[in-house]
Amino acid sequence: MRLKVKDVDISVPGMYIAVLHMEEAEHLDIFASDRIRISKGKKSIVAIVDISESRKGIGPGEIGLFEEVLDYLDVKNGDSVNIEVERKPESIAHIKKKLKGMELNKHELDEIVRDIVANRLSDIERTYFVSACYIHELSLQETVNLTNSVVEHGGKLDFKKKYVLDKHCLGGLPGNRTTMVIIPIVAAAGYTIAKTSSRSITSPSGTSDTMEVLAKVEFSIKKIKEIVKKTNGCMVWGGTLDLASADDRLIRVEKPLSIDPEGIMVTSILSKKKADGATHVLIDIPVGKSAKIQNEKRALRLKKKFIEVGKRLGMKIKVIVTDGNQPIGRGIGPALEARDVLAVLQGGGPEDLKEKSVYMAGLLLEMAGVKEGLKKAREILESGEAYKKMKEIIKAQEGRPEIKIEDIKLGKYKHEVVTKKSGKVKHIDNELIAKIARVAGAPQDKMSGVYMNVRLKDKVKRGDVLYTIYAKSKRKLEFAQDIVSSSGVIEVK
Amino acid sequence: MRLKVKDVDISVPGMYIAVLHMEEAEHLDIFASDRIRISKGKKSIVAIVDISESRKGIGPGEIGLFEEVLDYLDVKNGDSVNIEVERKPESIAHIKKKLKGMELNKHELDEIVRDIVANRLSDIERTYFVSACYIHELSLQETVNLTNSVVEHGGKLDFKKKYVLDKHCLGGLPGNRTTMVIIPIVAAAGYTIAKTSSRSITSPSGTSDTMEVLAKVEFSIKKIKEIVKKTNGCMVWGGTLDLASADDRLIRVEKPLSIDPEGIMVTSILSKKKADGATHVLIDIPVGKSAKIQNEKRALRLKKKFIEVGKRLGMKIKVIVTDGNQPIGRGIGPALEARDVLAVLQGGGPEDLKEKSVYMAGLLLEMAGVKEGLKKAREILESGEAYKKMKEIIKAQEGRPEIKIEDIKLGKYKHEVVTKKSGKVKHIDNELIAKIARVAGAPQDKMSGVYMNVRLKDKVKRGDVLYTIYAKSKRKLEFAQDIVSSSGVIEVK
Repeated sequence: MRLKVKDVDISVPGMYIAVLHMEEAEHLDIFASDRIRISKGKKSIVAIVDISESRKGIGPGEIGLFEEVLDYLDVKNGDSVNIEVERKPESIAHIKKKLKGMELNKHELDEIVRDIVANRLSDIERTYFVSACYIHELSLQETVNLTNSVVEHGGKLDFKKKYVLDKHCLGGLPGNRTTMVIIPIVAAAGYTIAKTSSRSITSPSGTSDTMEVLAKVEFSIKKIKEIVKKTNGCMVWGGTLDLASADDRLIRVEKPLSIDPEGIMVTSILSKKKADGATHVLIDIPVGKSAKIQNEKRALRLKKKFIEVGKRLGMKIKVIVTDGNQPIGRGIGPALEARDVLAVLQGGGPEDLKEKSVYMAGLLLEMAGVKEGLKKAREILESGEAYKKMKEIIKAQEGRPEIKIEDIKLGKYKHEVVTKKSGKVKHIDNELIAKIARVAGAPQDKMSGVYMNVRLKDKVKRGDVLYTIYAKSKRKLEFAQDIVSSSGVIEVK
Repeated sequence: MRLKVKDVDISVPGMYIAVLHMEEAEHLDIFASDRIRISKGKKSIVAIVDISESRKGIGPGEIGLFEEVLDYLDVKNGDSVNIEVERKPESIAHIKKKLKGMELNKHELDEIVRDIVANRLSDIERTYFVSACYIHELSLQETVNLTNSVVEHGGKLDFKKKYVLDKHCLGGLPGNRTTMVIIPIVAAAGYTIAKTSSRSITSPSGTSDTMEVLAKVEFSIKKIKEIVKKTNGCMVWGGTLDLASADDRLIRVEKPLSIDPEGIMVTSILSKKKADGATHVLIDIPVGKSAKIQNEKRALRLKKKFIEVGKRLGMKIKVIVTDGNQPIGRGIGPALEARDVLAVLQGGGPEDLKEKSVYMAGLLLEMAGVKEGLKKAREILESGEAYKKMKEIIKAQEGRPEIKIEDIKLGKYKHEVVTKKSGKVKHIDNELIAKIARVAGAPQDKMSGVYMNVRLKDKVKRGDVLYTIYAKSKRKLEFAQDIVSSSGVIEVK
């Protein structure tokens, strides 16, 4: 059957969608969510069908194509394409099997991942898979197989070294920019540590957002290899590398219900490490009332899982469970965090950020066989070697190595939140602090965010400043202030 | 925030969708699947946000609206609308609760149904609900509460009679047009039986499709009441009545995986009966290898559930488990089935269709307190009273009461499938028979379908006709023949 292309003019990432009018669908005896193969010349693609019952829009004889399909086939409005009915992918049967509570084998999981990466599964079908993994937890072996498939069907880095170190922090503790202190320490000690990070999705800043204050973060795989060869380390955005791309498409359907099945979370983290070429990985699980993991029991269960799955994947994994009851460092938001990081590297800065970074860098060095790793890490930081290495990395990433802390600009509009009573700081709500920083503009406005003037257990007097909000515009500052007044962000007793 | 409307020119039933450019979404600090309230003058609506990362399509300062939203707000391309951020509906938390395996109370289920009917839940969110109900089966009380909510949030019929009878057949047995014999018998006996039916979705014909060969089937609630008042019965399409409308939106997300959680299926059937005003309902569960319910055990479990849920809903329910191993009647497809029905009403026709209809009509009469209901049903059919009543109903539904069987035209192109060996008919594949009838054009081409020349256990000689395919066009006949040659539709041994 030949149909005339109509440009639908919107894009839906992660699926190839074609819209047919009801009449054409009836001719082909297909229904919404069935598949068709669309061909133009030598190019062809399998798309998921949406049925239009509309009076206008896509009419009989036409086929509406979303942007992803137009791009792939290189067709435009008015072009003629050929349509054939395709069978549903086999992976749908596997998803149904998992939904029934049965274990999936390596081949079945691989078909699911392959179809996700090829945009052959719809949102609804991926949601069924996530639901099934949420209720019928993935077994260790399923998690291993899933992770291997995700790595298989994505880009990979390979440094051909005995030790390629890496670290990961689970869940959004505001501030907590340890990565940017750890990488220079480990790299200065002579070990390879190629860190790819995400940009923030729901937090006020991701490592990539903060690093971007100092240097570029988007590079090709080739260029990343050069940076690491030159400096032993890097802090780049993983998004362009297409490492573990199946992952994004699962996360997309997890968001509406804020669901995060454990097996998929473990897969998501370890597949990226594996694709990064890591051999030894340190994982930090902060536990706290408003952290992602809220109790120690769950943290310990996860720890076991990470270690065992890592082992079967051929990676050595160490997990630390840390205090997640308050932000780490003083600044929250890209510029404020970059200031903290530079201060620590220059020998000052927030004590908690410094100590946590030294501790983690030390553990990483010990994983690579260094004796008294913690002592070594402290020496590297305090001697200025780490700062020197940071400047090398910033330079390699085409940034400004000589930037001074005071050159990092903060938002022009600021508001100090003061305590109405005297006492001790009893509770800090991480989620609300993050929300305030976001509404003030972070991470898009790099200079916006929150500076924590106090920490837990600090003694404060009526009128003391608890935290300071920075924003680029008066309007955003006011939005942020609205959240402050409506809720107890910091409790003083 | 004010944005300029862009007409997206496609329609997605069951959701209100608005597309924002990434920049606007960042300003509002919202993500895909978050909610916004869109207002124009005094009208306002809550829509689900899709984020466009596209180079073209929806740009900054614009909002793309799907057809359903445009219609509701009565806005067009270039109009300016006002946007505010809305909280996610509470029902999402309830869905998550069910996903965790907890039982939902009346209020929680009601909020879910209300939000589904108001198009406030996305496909993904409804899929999570269906998954949860599939894996953590709905309890009896949950099913009762869900059904009551579905009835509550839809249209209703009410005949103010002690006995309002109804019947339902579970799952797609081809042919099986008993309804069109039962309704005239019961109505002729003086009982109210107002049957709303679906059109076929995946089968070669629904009762509405077949009835449409003889009369109109789309009427307003008011008109249906008039028809029933005049004749005691009706056979109309339920689609326009908006009875149990939450149901359609759940079915939409069940289809991709062909999943049918038992609780939702029971709700789906009983909510329509309740909304139809039924007091006494007979449910037929055909069991067979290629029927919807494949074993007796499952049929009996369902039977228990129907009866108990019906009781708590205030309806008296009787369930029969019948033979689903072959089609009922000879014709499959609207015209062929209508011929069978008229033949039975005129005293001839396929024996199995006649006997099953008399049996079911008899049980219905007995449920309404008639003694020796089966005998009574047979008398009404054989005396011609039922046929007379059918003509009354056809007339009331603005059809052709005096139509003769031979006036019902069949497809011009036909193909007889003959057996290559002699023996007994051992197996008939209902699904394949249905598929052949569909591909030949049923139900859209009313005159297309399959006529069964043999039944199970019939003795056949090499060269005897097993079944005949009718189609409107040569091309469709050829498509149907392709299926015949590739598979064992009827087994002779």
